[in-house]
Amino acid sequence: MGLIVQKYGGTSVANLERIQNVANRVVRTHQQGNDVVVIVSAMAGVTDGLINLARKVNETPDKRELDALLATGEQTTAALLAMMLRSMGFQALSLMGFQVEVRTDFCYGNARIQDIRVDRVRSLLADRAIVVVAGFQGCDPDGNITTLGRGGSDTSAVAIAAALKADCCEIYTDVTGVFTADPSVVPKARKIDKISYEEMLEMASIGAKVLQIRSVEFAMKYNVPVHVRSSFSEEEGTMVVNEDNGMERVVVSAVTMNKNDARITLRKVPDMPGIAAKIFSPVAEAGISVDMIIQNTRASGKTDLTFTVPKADFKAALAIEKKVAEDIAAEDVFGDENIAKVSVTGVGMRSHPGVAARMFNTLAREGINIMMISTSEIRISCLIEQKYAELAVQALHTEFGLDAA
Amino acid sequence: MGLIVQKYGGTSVANLERIQNVANRVVRTHQQGNDVVVIVSAMAGVTDGLINLARKVNETPDKRELDALLATGEQTTAALLAMMLRSMGFQALSLMGFQVEVRTDFCYGNARIQDIRVDRVRSLLADRAIVVVAGFQGCDPDGNITTLGRGGSDTSAVAIAAALKADCCEIYTDVTGVFTADPSVVPKARKIDKISYEEMLEMASIGAKVLQIRSVEFAMKYNVPVHVRSSFSEEEGTMVVNEDNGMERVVVSAVTMNKNDARITLRKVPDMPGIAAKIFSPVAEAGISVDMIIQNTRASGKTDLTFTVPKADFKAALAIEKKVAEDIAAEDVFGDENIAKVSVTGVGMRSHPGVAARMFNTLAREGINIMMISTSEIRISCLIEQKYAELAVQALHTEFGLDAA
Repeated sequence: MGLIVQKYGGTSVANLERIQNVANRVVRTHQQGNDVVVIVSAMAGVTDGLINLARKVNETPDKRELDALLATGEQTTAALLAMMLRSMGFQALSLMGFQVEVRTDFCYGNARIQDIRVDRVRSLLADRAIVVVAGFQGCDPDGNITTLGRGGSDTSAVAIAAALKADCCEIYTDVTGVFTADPSVVPKARKIDKISYEEMLEMASIGAKVLQIRSVEFAMKYNVPVHVRSSFSEEEGTMVVNEDNGMERVVVSAVTMNKNDARITLRKVPDMPGIAAKIFSPVAEAGISVDMIIQNTRASGKTDLTFTVPKADFKAALAIEKKVAEDIAAEDVFGDENIAKVSVTGVGMRSHPGVAARMFNTLAREGINIMMISTSEIRISCLIEQKYAELAVQALHTEFGLDAA
Repeated sequence: MGLIVQKYGGTSVANLERIQNVANRVVRTHQQGNDVVVIVSAMAGVTDGLINLARKVNETPDKRELDALLATGEQTTAALLAMMLRSMGFQALSLMGFQVEVRTDFCYGNARIQDIRVDRVRSLLADRAIVVVAGFQGCDPDGNITTLGRGGSDTSAVAIAAALKADCCEIYTDVTGVFTADPSVVPKARKIDKISYEEMLEMASIGAKVLQIRSVEFAMKYNVPVHVRSSFSEEEGTMVVNEDNGMERVVVSAVTMNKNDARITLRKVPDMPGIAAKIFSPVAEAGISVDMIIQNTRASGKTDLTFTVPKADFKAALAIEKKVAEDIAAEDVFGDENIAKVSVTGVGMRSHPGVAARMFNTLAREGINIMMISTSEIRISCLIEQKYAELAVQALHTEFGLDAA
């Protein structure tokens, strides 16, 4: 008996049959005596279809209007699910982002939640109604429709769970939980029963697609227990919780990889104050986020500067840097899309020194060259040639004792 | 130079190419120095598609949820058109019903507009922005999404035009205006240049599909000049205006027909007080509207009672009356779907007696039997066998001098 927030992703609501499956799950949870708030994504493929439609109008459609367009996807699913629950005899109704109200900033296409006024949801729950909320969307202080960016329904769900002080936020997806590595790459990968917010955050930041990174930030900040599980099975999934909650003490929890970045190098850059600002400011102004940066000073007093950007922004960033290179008299600019980032993540690293050395040795043993390195307190990432990505993940998974028996 | 409200129906925005055509028209009006508010319908077929989807969930889906679902149709068109206008370099933005705000009652599926707060639209127009409004939708006092019923975008347009005190409300459709008869039935039908609100109201009430009846009521009440015209041609359409505005003084303005009704007869009903209430109350309670009613008293002290209902409600009404007939000991109940209603409409009737006689004579001359008659101050309708409908319209069109030269 408690207050459960359930979020169902696009594949879980891909068609009416699957929405019926979701309705059955929701009803079961409700009949166990819980209050239930359901957050839904757009039916699989719908958002991409709408984006394609908008791109036929304009390659870079107006962001405010794109948000108004995309918001219809979740609105459709929410109305259909509420309709279904009602025809099953339950009191249920759908609410859009503006009705909840999920207040965001004005950053269309990637808005951040600022405030959630859950009064209406609370009073509906007090009447034992099942509340179905369109995920991914909110509204700015002027009442314009905003969306929260890819995977934003996760953030909707966790933020609403936080605002309601829910007992648990269940994220239903098409996988049974968070794994020690991608099972399609590492057949011996194991499902993780419990993982800390911090580890999940690191994994999300390096491209694990299970949860949107902001949803994990919210969960950590407001201490919302998140249960990642499959809508297609009854199996328990992965609990994302505080570090102390008696989790297995391993050095490395998971090995991940990411082929979404590209690398840009400026050769023989004059090494003088202000040069980094000249190189990175125009990229930042174009809204492109830079991940890893490495600088090699040459004996000549010149320096080579390499950094990574998302592949989607690669061409734009390269064009910008070609101009920059002329301005600052760098010798050459070149890019490389054939790269991958492999990472090991684990809160155990804090108390176990030498993880980096083990990682580098393992890659060396497999004959894999490391191009760039970045680390956090609980993560080490290496940039390598893309063709070695799977090999690297497999070797590291074995090295850190993650293989299933 | 003025304030023009333009409404584009489903066929006018059926695909991106047609939305581009709409954008061009809007821009042209704007560049002539006018302030422009555009009301759009869902792209042709979208609303029916959503209704079919909902019916797969439940044959009679929850009305509140159906409205939330259907509202996505107009939201999509509005966002796409605003996007297109912006990519053409114009300041434009879309507003949903709740954003305008179009306040309605709680009658989901067929809500009535109670109030429109156009402050935001006004201030946008003051900045020379083009405002694109999703038609057909509003919100109730609790902020729930409502829809205005079939053709509701016409009502949205006229109501917003009234609230803004617009100089004209242009209704763009796939015909070039209002005709003296359906041109597919009467090849000699002529487009009417000017028609009064009252005539238009009568025509809308008997099934002329050009304008939603409530939109005409709004136009008449607030004296909004309505220009019905085609989005596919430059031709001037039909002005719907006050009677005095120098319109052609004809006796009959138009001849229409309608095959949407069915007839139900109760034979040998005991003729006593309260019997009519027993027959019509259960039908009204089922939300079925009765149009014509005729009662023939027999010498026996019994009476035959015949009435018409929309074909869509025919089966339900017949089932209800079969029960009623048992209760009141009527001898028999039978129905007939093979009927049509032909009508002549014209404000000129007020000053020209004898129109009814001419109509009956004309039908008689063609050998057409009249089953029922109903009249208003400016309209006469006759129920006839369906197979004679076209013949009747053609004969009346000629009789009242409406044939094109």
